[in-house]
Amino acid sequence: MAVDPKLDLPDITDIHLARARIQHQVKPTPVLSDPDLDDWAGCKLSLKCENFQRTGSFKFRGASNAIIRLDEDLDDGAPKQAVATHSSGNHGAALALAARISGREAHIVMPDDSVATKVAAVKRFGGTVHFCKPTHESREAGLATLVDQGMTAIHPYDRAEIIAGQGSCALELLGEKPGLDLLLAPVGGGGLISGCALAAQAQGVSVIGAEPEGAADTHASLEQGHRVDHWTPNTIADGLRAIVGERNFLLISKLVSQVVLVGEDEIRAAQAAAWRYLRMVVEPSSATVLAAVKRYPEVFSGHRVGAIISGGNVLLGDWCKTVDS
Amino acid sequence: MAVDPKLDLPDITDIHLARARIQHQVKPTPVLSDPDLDDWAGCKLSLKCENFQRTGSFKFRGASNAIIRLDEDLDDGAPKQAVATHSSGNHGAALALAARISGREAHIVMPDDSVATKVAAVKRFGGTVHFCKPTHESREAGLATLVDQGMTAIHPYDRAEIIAGQGSCALELLGEKPGLDLLLAPVGGGGLISGCALAAQAQGVSVIGAEPEGAADTHASLEQGHRVDHWTPNTIADGLRAIVGERNFLLISKLVSQVVLVGEDEIRAAQAAAWRYLRMVVEPSSATVLAAVKRYPEVFSGHRVGAIISGGNVLLGDWCKTVDS
Repeated sequence: MAVDPKLDLPDITDIHLARARIQHQVKPTPVLSDPDLDDWAGCKLSLKCENFQRTGSFKFRGASNAIIRLDEDLDDGAPKQAVATHSSGNHGAALALAARISGREAHIVMPDDSVATKVAAVKRFGGTVHFCKPTHESREAGLATLVDQGMTAIHPYDRAEIIAGQGSCALELLGEKPGLDLLLAPVGGGGLISGCALAAQAQGVSVIGAEPEGAADTHASLEQGHRVDHWTPNTIADGLRAIVGERNFLLISKLVSQVVLVGEDEIRAAQAAAWRYLRMVVEPSSATVLAAVKRYPEVFSGHRVGAIISGGNVLLGDWCKTVDS
Repeated sequence: MAVDPKLDLPDITDIHLARARIQHQVKPTPVLSDPDLDDWAGCKLSLKCENFQRTGSFKFRGASNAIIRLDEDLDDGAPKQAVATHSSGNHGAALALAARISGREAHIVMPDDSVATKVAAVKRFGGTVHFCKPTHESREAGLATLVDQGMTAIHPYDRAEIIAGQGSCALELLGEKPGLDLLLAPVGGGGLISGCALAAQAQGVSVIGAEPEGAADTHASLEQGHRVDHWTPNTIADGLRAIVGERNFLLISKLVSQVVLVGEDEIRAAQAAAWRYLRMVVEPSSATVLAAVKRYPEVFSGHRVGAIISGGNVLLGDWCKTVDS
C-alpha cells in the first residue's frame, strides 16, 4: 500500500461530507460519563463510545466513507470491484461489513498468527481471509497479489476518505458536548486522531494524543521533526502497533498539541477502571486515553475532556484476567 | 419486610415526580440498537441500557427516590437514620450508594452464597454487609434485627417510591423513542416492570414481561389469578429469583398484557448475542428480554420493541465462558 506522492489531505469540509455520507449505516454512538470515574480520573470525562459502533470500533466509519466514495465514482452500469486490505484486526472487519453493504467482495490479508476472534469477525461480516506470514513484507506481497487481480486496495489509515470518516465521531462528540476544553484520542497509524483534530480545530478545541510507550513512533516523530518509519512495537494495545502514516503525520504535526505516552500497566489499570465504573469492555488501545488522564494530572486535571473510546474488541480471556481483581 | 395492609400504590404522577427528584444523581442511560441484532431478533429493538446506570443496574433509580423521599420528610435538625435491606445484589449496591450520597449509613443483609462481585460492590459503595443463610426466613430475620436497632427498612421492590423510581427509566425510553409498539422488561420481584407499566400505559404502549422458567412465580400468579407466594427459584438470572411483591402483582395484573417464559439456554444465548452484536456485558436477568423476542416471534416479530436492559453486573468468569464461543 504505497502512499501516493501527491498526498491529498482532507479538510473540515470532507469530515462534514463524510458524516452525511455514512450516517445511514453508521451508528450514532453514545457519549457516556460517570461521577465516580471522574473522581478516579481527576477530570470531567465525556467518553465517545465507538466500542458500540458496528464491528466494535470506529474503523467502520472510515471504511464506510471510503467504500461509498468508490460507489459514487462508478460509471453507470460499471461492475463493483472487490476491495482488499491487510489488517490484523478492526479495519479488516470494518471493511468487510462496509463492502457487504455496498454489494462488493472484501478480501483481507491477515497474518497467520492473528487472534482467532478477529479472523472470525472478518468472516462473519462476509470477508474472505487470505493468510500470510506475520511480517510487513508478507502482508504487502499478499495485498499486491490481490491488487494485481484487479481489486482496489483501501489503506487502513493513510487515505483521505478514511481520515475524514474517522473524524465524524469527533463531530458528533463536539456537537453533543459543547464546551469541552480538550479532545483526547489514541494514536496508532493516526487515522482517528488526524480526523478528530480537523474536527476539533474548526471549533477551537485543543487535541491531545495518547500513545503506548511500546509503540511511540508518533511521539518520536514529533520530537525529531520528521516521520519515524521504522519501529518494532511492543504493547498489548494491538490496534496501535502501526507506524504513523504520511498524511496522518502531516496533520498531527500541524493540529495536535501534544502526544503523551502511557505504560502497559497503566493501560491495564485503565481497562479495569472502565469495567469498574462504567461496566464497559474497552480494548487496550482505547484504554490509553483513560491511562493518559490518570498519569498526567498536570495536563488534564479539572478540565472537561472529550475522549474517544476507539473499540471494544478484546480477547475475552485476557480481558477477564486484566479486570477481574 | 411485611407489606403494609393499606398498599399505597404509585401512579403516573409519582413516576414523573421521581424522575425530577432523582435526575441530579441518576445517569440518563443511552438507548442502543443494532441492525445485525435486529436481524437476529426478528424485530426492531431499542435497548434502554440500565447496565450503564450507576452501580450497574436500574436499582439505583428506586433506591435514590426512596432515600431522597426520606430526606424530604425529615424534621429540621433530625438525624438521618441508617437504612437497611436484604438483597442478593443490585438493590444492595444501589441503596449503599444512594445512602452514601445522602449521608446515611446503609446495612445490607446478603445470603452467604451471593455473587462475590455483588458483595464487593456493596462494600465499594460504602455499605456494611451482614451475611445470612440463603433462605427467605434467614434474610427476613437478619433485617428484623437491624430494624430493631432503629434502622429504616427499604424493601427492594414492594414499595411505592421504589416502583416510581424504577419507572423513570421507561419515561426516558418512551420520550427518546416515540412510536414503540411494545415495552418489554424482566420480571423478578416486579419493581421494574410495574413502574415501567405505569409509564407505558399513560402513553398507550403495551407492556410484556420476561421471566425465567425457573422463577416463574409471576406467570403462575397471573394464571391462577392470585399471588403465588412460595417458589423455589432455579435460574442463572440471579436478579429475578425474588417472589413478586404485593403492590407489584396488583399493578402487573392490571397493566401488563402478558408475561412470557424463557429457558436457561435461551438466556445464555441472549447474553452471547448481546456481546456479539453490541459488545455489551449484560447480566442473565437482562438477557431474558432478548431471549423472549427470539423465542416468541408470534408476539414480537416485526414490531418496534423497547426493552429494558436491567443490569450488567456479572460474575466475569461465568460470563466469559457463556459468551466466548
